[in-house]
Amino acid sequence: MKTPLKVAVTGAAGNIGYATLFRLASGDCFGKDQPVILQLLEIPAGMKALEGVVMELFDSAFPLLAGVETTDDPNRAFAGVDYAFLIGSRPRTKDMDRADLIKVNGPIFTAQGKALNDHASRGVKVCVVGNPCNTNALIAMHAAKDLPRSAFSAMTRLDQNRAVAQLAAKVGAGAGDVSRMVIWGNHSDTMVPDFSNATVGGVPVIEKVGRDWLIGDFVQTVATRGKAIINARGASSAASAASAAIDHVATWHFGTKPGEWASMAIPSSGEYGVPAGLIFSYPVTVSGGAAHIVEGLSVDAWTQGKIDATTQELLAERAAVADLLA
Amino acid sequence: MKTPLKVAVTGAAGNIGYATLFRLASGDCFGKDQPVILQLLEIPAGMKALEGVVMELFDSAFPLLAGVETTDDPNRAFAGVDYAFLIGSRPRTKDMDRADLIKVNGPIFTAQGKALNDHASRGVKVCVVGNPCNTNALIAMHAAKDLPRSAFSAMTRLDQNRAVAQLAAKVGAGAGDVSRMVIWGNHSDTMVPDFSNATVGGVPVIEKVGRDWLIGDFVQTVATRGKAIINARGASSAASAASAAIDHVATWHFGTKPGEWASMAIPSSGEYGVPAGLIFSYPVTVSGGAAHIVEGLSVDAWTQGKIDATTQELLAERAAVADLLA
Repeated sequence: MKTPLKVAVTGAAGNIGYATLFRLASGDCFGKDQPVILQLLEIPAGMKALEGVVMELFDSAFPLLAGVETTDDPNRAFAGVDYAFLIGSRPRTKDMDRADLIKVNGPIFTAQGKALNDHASRGVKVCVVGNPCNTNALIAMHAAKDLPRSAFSAMTRLDQNRAVAQLAAKVGAGAGDVSRMVIWGNHSDTMVPDFSNATVGGVPVIEKVGRDWLIGDFVQTVATRGKAIINARGASSAASAASAAIDHVATWHFGTKPGEWASMAIPSSGEYGVPAGLIFSYPVTVSGGAAHIVEGLSVDAWTQGKIDATTQELLAERAAVADLLA
Repeated sequence: MKTPLKVAVTGAAGNIGYATLFRLASGDCFGKDQPVILQLLEIPAGMKALEGVVMELFDSAFPLLAGVETTDDPNRAFAGVDYAFLIGSRPRTKDMDRADLIKVNGPIFTAQGKALNDHASRGVKVCVVGNPCNTNALIAMHAAKDLPRSAFSAMTRLDQNRAVAQLAAKVGAGAGDVSRMVIWGNHSDTMVPDFSNATVGGVPVIEKVGRDWLIGDFVQTVATRGKAIINARGASSAASAASAAIDHVATWHFGTKPGEWASMAIPSSGEYGVPAGLIFSYPVTVSGGAAHIVEGLSVDAWTQGKIDATTQELLAERAAVADLLA
C-alpha cells in the first residue's frame, strides 16, 4: 500500500466541498491505489455540518480513506499536506460589487497562505477554487514567502470543461474527443475561451463549426453558463465545480497526456505579454508535478483583445489588494 | 471502446440522485473503460431542476458519458436499460406513519415495475433505494411479470457500510480490512447487523471488541445513524447513500472478491426460514451477475430473534400492499 497523501479541503461542508470529498475518498483524483488522509477546514459556524459530512464519509466505508481530521484552524488543516483545495470563500452578497468581494476575501487567503507556508509539505500543490480565485491565489502566494510560487494555482478547468462540452455537443462527439481547448486569464466573465488550437477527433474545430458560431453563441454560452445553471437548478454549480477541481489536481498529479494541454491559472513570468506575477490561466502541459506554459502560440487579434481585457481586470484586482501583497 | 451501458436513475434531481450521477459518469461504478448512457427520470415538478443537473453533467466533460436522456415518463426512462437505480420515492411527511408511506409509494413502483417489464433490457438489474425500499422492490417485481425475479433488489449496503465503518473505527483499522459484516432483513430500524462472521484483518471481531459492545453501542449506532446524520448536517444522508448504491451495483456488476460477502435485499426462496417471496437482505456472494445467498450459516439465538422481528415487519408491509401484488 502506498503512503497516504495528505489532502486539505477548505469550505469542506459547503456544496462544492461536499461534492469533492466523496470523489477524493473514492480514489477518483489520485488513483484507486492511493490512500488519502483528508484534513478538512471550516469556519466555526460550519463545524457542526462538517461533523455530519464526516459521518457520511465514514459511512461510505472507502478503503482508500486512511483518516479524516476536522478543524477551524488553518494551521492544523494544512499540517504536512501534499495538496490543498481552497474551496471556501466569502460569497458575494447583494450589496457587494467585485471589489468588495475581493477585499472581504483577502484576509482569509492571507491567513491560509501563511498557514500553508508554516505547516504544509514543502512540495505542496494548492488549487484555489473559491472566488475570486485568481486573486485569492495571488494573496495566498504572497503570504507564503518560503514556498515556491509554483505551489499556487487557481482553477479555470470548469471553464475549460464547459467549453469542451459545448464543442462536443455541437459536433455530436464525446468530450474525450476534444483536445487543446483552453482558457486564458481570469476565472470571471472576462476569461478567454481559446478555440483556435482546439480539435475534435483531430480536426480543427474552426473547420467543423465555423468561426461565426465560435465567436458568437459558443463564447457567450461558456461565459454565462454559471448563471444559466443557477436559473435551472435554483442553486449554483457544485458537482461540476468539484469535478473540475478533481480534474485540475489529477492533471497536476499525473501530468497531461502526450499532445494534450490543460488550462491552469498559475503565476505568470511575463509569458505572452502578461505582467509577471499575476495568477493567469494559460495553456499548459504538466509533467513530474510541474506545469509548463505552452510557448510560441500565435495569438490572433480577436483573442489578443480579450486577453488584454482579462489582464486589465486582473491588474485592477491586484491593485485593490495591494496592501495585502506588500 | 466498449458498448455503452444504459443506466436509468429515478429521482435524478434529488440529493441522492445528484450525488449518484457524477460518480456513475466518472466511471466509479462500472469502471474507467465503460461508457454509460444515463436515462434520468423525474416527476414533472422536478424536470426544471433536472435540466440544471444535466447541464452540470455535461459541464464536467466526462469522457465516459456517452449520452443523457431526461423524461418524466418511466416507459422512456427504462427503454433498453441494463441497470436501474430506483432512487425517487415519496418522502414521509409529518402526518404519515410507515403504513401510509408504503401506500403512497405503491402506485409509483407499480408503474415503474410495469415500465421496466415492458421496456428494459431482459437482463436488467434493478436496485431500489427509495424507501421503504424492500417493499417498493417487491411491488415493482410483482408488476414486472415477464422479468426474472432475480432482476430486483433493494439496498441494505448503506447499513453494511455504516457497520463496517463502526467496526473499523473501533479497532483503528481501515474499512477495507473488515470482511463478512452483513445485514439481514428490512432496510429499516429492524434491520439486523450480523457481526457473528465478521473479521478485521482476518481476526473475528468478537475476539477483538467483545460481544457486549457489539450487541449494545454498535447495533444502536448503526440503527440510528440516519437520524444522527440529519441532526449534524441538517439534511439526510445523500452522498453516503449514493456511495452505497454505487457499491451495491458495482458488486452486482463485477462480483464479490473471493472470500468476501455483501448484503443485498433480494427475493427470498425461503432460505433461513424467511417466507418465500419477501425481498429480504441476506449475505450473498455474486458472480456472473447473479447473487447467491450464503447458505449453511449457523445463526445464534440473539440474531435469530432479530431476524424474526424484521421478517414480521416485512410481512406486515406486504400485507399493507396486498392489493398491488395480486
